[in-house]
Amino acid sequence: MAVPGQNVAVVVHRAGDLRLENRPIPEPGPNEVLLRMHSVGICGSDVHYWQHGRIGDFVVKDPMVLGHEASGTVVKVGSGVTHLKPGDRVAIEPGVPREMDEFCKSGRYNLSPTIFFCATPPDDGNLCRYYKHSASYCYKLPDNVTFEEGALIEPLSVGIHACKRAGVTLGSKVFVSGSGPIGLVNVIVAKMMGAAAVVVTDLSASRLQKAKEVGADFTIQVQKETPQEVASKVESVLGCMPEITVECTGVQACIQAGIYATRSGGTLVLVGLGPEMVTVPIVNAAVREVDIRGIFRYCNTWPVAISLLASKRINVKPLVTHRFPLEKALEAFETTKRGEGVKVMLKCDPTDQNP
Amino acid sequence: MAVPGQNVAVVVHRAGDLRLENRPIPEPGPNEVLLRMHSVGICGSDVHYWQHGRIGDFVVKDPMVLGHEASGTVVKVGSGVTHLKPGDRVAIEPGVPREMDEFCKSGRYNLSPTIFFCATPPDDGNLCRYYKHSASYCYKLPDNVTFEEGALIEPLSVGIHACKRAGVTLGSKVFVSGSGPIGLVNVIVAKMMGAAAVVVTDLSASRLQKAKEVGADFTIQVQKETPQEVASKVESVLGCMPEITVECTGVQACIQAGIYATRSGGTLVLVGLGPEMVTVPIVNAAVREVDIRGIFRYCNTWPVAISLLASKRINVKPLVTHRFPLEKALEAFETTKRGEGVKVMLKCDPTDQNP
Amino acid sequence: MAVPGQNVAVVVHRAGDLRLENRPIPEPGPNEVLLRMHSVGICGSDVHYWQHGRIGDFVVKDPMVLGHEASGTVVKVGSGVTHLKPGDRVAIEPGVPREMDEFCKSGRYNLSPTIFFCATPPDDGNLCRYYKHSASYCYKLPDNVTFEEGALIEPLSVGIHACKRAGVTLGSKVFVSGSGPIGLVNVIVAKMMGAAAVVVTDLSASRLQKAKEVGADFTIQVQKETPQEVASKVESVLGCMPEITVECTGVQACIQAGIYATRSGGTLVLVGLGPEMVTVPIVNAAVREVDIRGIFRYCNTWPVAISLLASKRINVKPLVTHRFPLEKALEAFETTKRGEGVKVMLKCDPTDQNP
Amino acid sequence: MAVPGQNVAVVVHRAGDLRLENRPIPEPGPNEVLLRMHSVGICGSDVHYWQHGRIGDFVVKDPMVLGHEASGTVVKVGSGVTHLKPGDRVAIEPGVPREMDEFCKSGRYNLSPTIFFCATPPDDGNLCRYYKHSASYCYKLPDNVTFEEGALIEPLSVGIHACKRAGVTLGSKVFVSGSGPIGLVNVIVAKMMGAAAVVVTDLSASRLQKAKEVGADFTIQVQKETPQEVASKVESVLGCMPEITVECTGVQACIQAGIYATRSGGTLVLVGLGPEMVTVPIVNAAVREVDIRGIFRYCNTWPVAISLLASKRINVKPLVTHRFPLEKALEAFETTKRGEGVKVMLKCDPTDQNP
Repeated sequence: MAVPGQNVAVVVHRAGDLRLENRPIPEPGPNEVLLRMHSVGICGSDVHYWQHGRIGDFVVKDPMVLGHEASGTVVKVGSGVTHLKPGDRVAIEPGVPREMDEFCKSGRYNLSPTIFFCATPPDDGNLCRYYKHSASYCYKLPDNVTFEEGALIEPLSVGIHACKRAGVTLGSKVFVSGSGPIGLVNVIVAKMMGAAAVVVTDLSASRLQKAKEVGADFTIQVQKETPQEVASKVESVLGCMPEITVECTGVQACIQAGIYATRSGGTLVLVGLGPEMVTVPIVNAAVREVDIRGIFRYCNTWPVAISLLASKRINVKPLVTHRFPLEKALEAFETTKRGEGVKVMLKCDPTDQNP
Repeated sequence: MAVPGQNVAVVVHRAGDLRLENRPIPEPGPNEVLLRMHSVGICGSDVHYWQHGRIGDFVVKDPMVLGHEASGTVVKVGSGVTHLKPGDRVAIEPGVPREMDEFCKSGRYNLSPTIFFCATPPDDGNLCRYYKHSASYCYKLPDNVTFEEGALIEPLSVGIHACKRAGVTLGSKVFVSGSGPIGLVNVIVAKMMGAAAVVVTDLSASRLQKAKEVGADFTIQVQKETPQEVASKVESVLGCMPEITVECTGVQACIQAGIYATRSGGTLVLVGLGPEMVTVPIVNAAVREVDIRGIFRYCNTWPVAISLLASKRINVKPLVTHRFPLEKALEAFETTKRGEGVKVMLKCDPTDQNP
Repeated sequence: MAVPGQNVAVVVHRAGDLRLENRPIPEPGPNEVLLRMHSVGICGSDVHYWQHGRIGDFVVKDPMVLGHEASGTVVKVGSGVTHLKPGDRVAIEPGVPREMDEFCKSGRYNLSPTIFFCATPPDDGNLCRYYKHSASYCYKLPDNVTFEEGALIEPLSVGIHACKRAGVTLGSKVFVSGSGPIGLVNVIVAKMMGAAAVVVTDLSASRLQKAKEVGADFTIQVQKETPQEVASKVESVLGCMPEITVECTGVQACIQAGIYATRSGGTLVLVGLGPEMVTVPIVNAAVREVDIRGIFRYCNTWPVAISLLASKRINVKPLVTHRFPLEKALEAFETTKRGEGVKVMLKCDPTDQNP
Repeated sequence: MAVPGQNVAVVVHRAGDLRLENRPIPEPGPNEVLLRMHSVGICGSDVHYWQHGRIGDFVVKDPMVLGHEASGTVVKVGSGVTHLKPGDRVAIEPGVPREMDEFCKSGRYNLSPTIFFCATPPDDGNLCRYYKHSASYCYKLPDNVTFEEGALIEPLSVGIHACKRAGVTLGSKVFVSGSGPIGLVNVIVAKMMGAAAVVVTDLSASRLQKAKEVGADFTIQVQKETPQEVASKVESVLGCMPEITVECTGVQACIQAGIYATRSGGTLVLVGLGPEMVTVPIVNAAVREVDIRGIFRYCNTWPVAISLLASKRINVKPLVTHRFPLEKALEAFETTKRGEGVKVMLKCDPTDQNP
């Protein structure tokens, strides 16, 4: 499995065809930095590109480096870069807008249609040894934040963006539907934002156990309940209907349950993505003024996450359940595919495999 | 058809059974006023209760006075009323919260589950000669605002609440789906709030003509287009995708078109109500962060509407296309049922049948 | 000091004249409840009315019962009360709007000019044995929340309202100016809302020590620094300028420091009140879009606070440093006046003096 | 006064020293366009730099081209420019952020401390024949919008930004303090956003006449009134206190009047800038929750303004009262300095001096 060369990279060629290859070490442009990668988490989307060669309209047509949950060390800076220098440890925000369009100018750059995004075809990701990135989207890590915490900012950002769009605030009662990695980060973030009570549902008792560990106040293991029954159970354990539901499964019945469960005037945030068309009780939502809001990735979350990690008020370390050196990436992907653990972390720096 | 007695009222007994009856003149409580009714518009919901005896879970079990788009004159005030006196001309907000619950305290009293609402079973409406109402929900009309303008504040309020929930603001491009009375008030309000361009769709050319008259910049007569095709036409006439769509039909294909049509980061407001369950391209909305928001009636709209009417900046008079004296209410209801004109107004004061 | 009678009350007659008196036990109206008072905290405003007979335009003209940080037990309910019953333990929101005016309807009832407010002339407070109050503004306490926690919801509410108006959110850096009781609750609430770092300034080292105990990340003991120097120290300890400053002293130099200290685009909330006219660097605030927002008491905070207390996520118990039985109220007021401790609690129920 | 050369420019060298000079025609960078300037308005700040050589901390140290209210025609595009081509008529947003910092990323790029801004030292403006600018901040003008309308987007943007920050919405009552060019654009914009009534104050009857012409509902000529008296007059003519005050003078007494005048829960926006330190009734504002918000230039306003101008719903043409060819710039500046008219426009294209 050893690949000769300085810049080993994990590359998907087409559905089912994942390879370790050597790539040239890139040269940073004037506003870019070259990074020696340290820790990169495997995301469900990475596995999906490997297994299916596409996600919706994004199709792997040419070989593409995977990876977008990442941190590393600056080794070289472009001529126009002033806020970073070689040796700086950074977390990488994978989305970099290419144009200053209306979305960028108004603070919602994640919606920019021409955005570069690591490991979304045709843009290469950073699951490799050396990678260059826009300096403005590399954020310096304080000494007391580890590389793995830096890499975990990406999934954490999904929770931050979702909970912000949901309007979680002091005293909120929150229903998180689904207890996978994204459900878990939403539990963590909702509690951090002052939620008074968070209830999580899932089919799996072991996943719900993880939700308890990261701070869920209540869990409900669902089986064959109707959406209305799930909503009723949620209300029962909370003692009231939640103002906010964060739906992390994408399953039609769960979206329906999310509508029925949410208090009048509240918000249902759709994080999980399932089939393109779903049947929902739209009148129920509309006449109770339950807003339905989706999220697309995130924006403006890295500085927030770094502040929280530096303050030691948030603990994401339990999310990492497996580690592999970069050379064993294929084994790591197999592990992720089997659904073991929560987050699998690849260690890209042969000289430092620490967290 | 003449009914003896001082307080002639239009009463629905059950589906298909609408009667003119005499009712006792009520006595106002300490915080109420007794009103001599002047002008009351007929709403689609009034016709629906007459035709079907119910709307969703609201069922006519006992005879109920219809009417909730109303204005009149104060003839008597309760002991605790200070801001109104006999002779004052007022517009009536039909929803009056019964409890100071969490929704009331936070400014969303329309969502209060125990709210009184004119002509929603079992609460009587005000299509009659004399009616008592909470003084706090009767708003004094300036001399330069007519009774009919006062009665039209109710449908206008649906537009105000919808456009506020939609976030219409300076320069907005707005797509209004459906050109019935509610679509028209949304056109009027959106333009008043600074929308730069409003496009309206409908099946009917004559209804679209009315939209033009009240200020629509563009109209599109739809026929057999797919939802995506409607969205494409909307973008084409506006020169860009609208940030805001106000859906006033409740038809599934129109809701779908509303999602496809709305710009990323924008808002689709659901005003029209159709079948309980609808199939929608939820992923399309979610990943483009198009918010889907319903409305339930309105709140905090009467003072806004009165200010606008008093300023003469808004012209709702063209909406009234028919007038009938109260004694001819059944004829007026038949007219409304046939879908003629836009708004049918009943004149309840035999001594003053002016607008 | 013993006062015969069933309803001992702490009454201010004029500046400097505070008495224990017996008052008749009131009879609750249809929408009111009669309460047996349990715990009532002494507020700086209570002491101010005792010492000066007035606060601004509010003048003690007739004898007035003091007290507005209170909890008790329902002993009798009015005919229209459905959500409470005798035996219920409740926290009391002291402000009860008298009219359903524009402020109430829009969710800002604290601004209603005719609001009833405990212990603001001429309205009596609840520092007594028996007190009646609007049932809608009495909130049931869960079994795991003590009466004293219930009484502390009032000062806590000042912090909740201030931090909500400030827009504290996940990752915020917050500067709290002043470490008295109100500064402390703002520290607690800001941290609960996800603030990443809170720095507190005060003249007193012992007060700053208390700030540390309730969660402040940093403290700065100020002496003779200029406002600009204070701002500079705040930036230095935080590592950046705070987005939010909560000013709790009312002192002109502190308001100035708050403006200089706050990051461009941020918010300065004025909680402390000092002289009517102050000189401030308004251009500095304006051209950096630093918003200056005051607060008047609070609204919609009791349910939030109860949820948080019930969740055990917030600990306000350390705020209570002294307790006195109601009979020793004058001694308790002397203690508060001397500035000892943080919060002095009066125990009004002779049969239960527990927290 | 004729200056030989292709790129005549209006250059301030130091206080009192304004010259017409020839400058080299610049070469656009990859993301820039070269423009042939058409119409450039003279702003009060241009005159101020000429008269005083500085505004606050911004000091003219090296010769600087004036002008930032501008429109022109693209004559050359950089290699990376795709949305513009030679011949396109464009309006120029004068502020261009240099870094993608936290302010840019969150949609408030006007607050970016390193922003380039035309005619703010040391950045050159565009009062010249040929000028290069970031293509992303040049906005294509529709055929039905004139160059002068395009140039007027800059002052209009101040009104848009101010009224947005003020929260002007449907039915708002607005008090605009000061009837100079900036007061006037605020009147225009507030009305466009749905304000029901706008009252304007000024010392000058002729300026107030202009306010009437652009849409003010009421005007008040002030003389020696106290701030409280001004507030009282404003309430009197509106029939209620305004929710919003837009202060455009910067004078201390006017800021005070703005606080007293604004309704509880409302907003005072500071647009005019006066002395660094002002004395204000801060307690009055704070306890009535009147927010005080400044503005710094504007952001995200050009597309809004172009939509409105294209829709023909807004008429800014009356603002232009004088026109001079570029060669007579010094005469134009003298005219502006004397306070004649409203807006003086310089015509930079010798082949097209039309509006």
